Amino acid sequence: MVKIGIVGYGNLGRAAIANIANFPDLTIVAVFSRRQLTLDNIPCFAMEDMKNFIGKIDVMLMCGGSAKDLPGQSPEVLKHFCTVDSFDTHAKIPEFFDVMDKTGKEADKLAAISVGWDPGLFSMMRCMFSSFMPYGDTYTFWGKGVSQGHSDAVRRVEGVRKAIQYTEPKEEALSLVREGRGKGLETSDMHKRVCFVVAEENSDRDKISEEIRSMPNYFADYDTEVNFISESEFDQMHNKLPHGGFVLRSGEVGEEQKTLTELSINLESNPGFTSSILLSFCRAVNRLYEEGKRGAVTVLDIPLSALSDLTPRELRKNLL
Amino acid sequence: MVKIGIVGYGNLGRAAIANIANFPDLTIVAVFSRRQLTLDNIPCFAMEDMKNFIGKIDVMLMCGGSAKDLPGQSPEVLKHFCTVDSFDTHAKIPEFFDVMDKTGKEADKLAAISVGWDPGLFSMMRCMFSSFMPYGDTYTFWGKGVSQGHSDAVRRVEGVRKAIQYTEPKEEALSLVREGRGKGLETSDMHKRVCFVVAEENSDRDKISEEIRSMPNYFADYDTEVNFISESEFDQMHNKLPHGGFVLRSGEVGEEQKTLTELSINLESNPGFTSSILLSFCRAVNRLYEEGKRGAVTVLDIPLSALSDLTPRELRKNLL
Repeated sequence: MVKIGIVGYGNLGRAAIANIANFPDLTIVAVFSRRQLTLDNIPCFAMEDMKNFIGKIDVMLMCGGSAKDLPGQSPEVLKHFCTVDSFDTHAKIPEFFDVMDKTGKEADKLAAISVGWDPGLFSMMRCMFSSFMPYGDTYTFWGKGVSQGHSDAVRRVEGVRKAIQYTEPKEEALSLVREGRGKGLETSDMHKRVCFVVAEENSDRDKISEEIRSMPNYFADYDTEVNFISESEFDQMHNKLPHGGFVLRSGEVGEEQKTLTELSINLESNPGFTSSILLSFCRAVNRLYEEGKRGAVTVLDIPLSALSDLTPRELRKNLL
Repeated sequence: MVKIGIVGYGNLGRAAIANIANFPDLTIVAVFSRRQLTLDNIPCFAMEDMKNFIGKIDVMLMCGGSAKDLPGQSPEVLKHFCTVDSFDTHAKIPEFFDVMDKTGKEADKLAAISVGWDPGLFSMMRCMFSSFMPYGDTYTFWGKGVSQGHSDAVRRVEGVRKAIQYTEPKEEALSLVREGRGKGLETSDMHKRVCFVVAEENSDRDKISEEIRSMPNYFADYDTEVNFISESEFDQMHNKLPHGGFVLRSGEVGEEQKTLTELSINLESNPGFTSSILLSFCRAVNRLYEEGKRGAVTVLDIPLSALSDLTPRELRKNLL
């Protein structure tokens, strides 16, 4: 059994625990949290207690956020444990990789960074698609799904009591890409932003709406829809974290032969799927570590067979 | 530059040559064929001349057929060169792997076997999807595309002058799978077979049609459509080798959270895309060979970064 520690008990940590039964070769030994926690079946500890588990946990699953938690936590934990994290600030991945690679090599440990579906599964598809069809263009669409960052931004607008923001691919942009006519499409041409807002009583809805729509970086460049709804409707209809998306590559092989490759995912729960991917990478990290790999790796450095609980022979017989 | 030899000049070999310009780090040094060949830009040789290229070719791209060519050719060539082949007789892959692995280790060479889109890209997706979402079912649909084996079978029917067979996914089966209601679907429920036939003059069309539809293994279990067309229509409309397909996994993560992952490909040219994939695996085999890997590998044993011409650092910056 691969012994897993969960670091952080937010959406992702909870979802990992809910998923563990699907990974018969993994077991969760402990949950580490800043909060004082009591869980039914899993012992919970403070972050400081982690040092007592040196040698007793194979892989730490880092479930904190990319903005504030992981940049400090991941290298710190890596000094004593192999880690898997979902660091997703795309622009800072190269520098985060260098820190983790150096730390892992010094500590004789292995880290898989930036695991999940984007970065993660989607990165794998971008790599496969562009390697298999070098002449072409790759497009990534996100949604329909909840963007936490954008939901937070809407909640900061004066007069907003509750809010959620869904990012949605534009059907017409998807069609253009599928027809091989996507050249020049920008992220803002490819997505629209749909907000559901519960306003404070007596607030000015037009003003709220205008303030959201004109918010730079977040909404100003996008088609943005603002819907005001009642609190009861909000609580009933918008209490989930669905997500999804598409990676498409459109191009040509050989003598101008049109080729389209497309991955799509449709998730009732974003943390549910993300944590399930993370667990399969915990398995892979443990395997590569046993084979002698040290430092940091990304999803692009791991043979797919290491993600599966089937043996190489079973994989060849059943999946190839 | 990675020096490539092309073994066999059929559809696949020709398509590899048409694709090589998209792989700036690969160069084709020679084509080996049983036929006497003359090509504009690439020297052509008899199979027996291969021994003169020992040390001058890094990877041999095996472009023969799985039924008659590869089982003998691949191990023979592997005695002196690294190889990439597209062996696609699914049931015989484990035994073929064992032969190639043993041969490669004895010869100090490396072979990637069963590369292409199925087995190949589709196998990679089946492995990723089932690892990331252990609780669920995987479905593979082929088409719309030309099946050579089925086209050949139709051509053997008395009274048939020319024929082509397209395998098509059934839309209703695809919908069931996407809705998570695909349980129990068999290959014959998921596909239909559409034949276009040019009949000999004065032949009995009802008899031809009946003979095709009742052919065991090939058509008897399927919804089969037989269309009689003129020779000129056939020559104009059915002279290409398009293909495509879908890999879907439908299941649940965490607390019964529905999840659907789907890959689809749409190919104007089956050999065009297959040969492009094969070329990217030639690059990977050369890289793994340089790193000391020997024996045989499949698409599931190769880190995705080895398929790309970008450096690991570029991949992290641009694709992750």
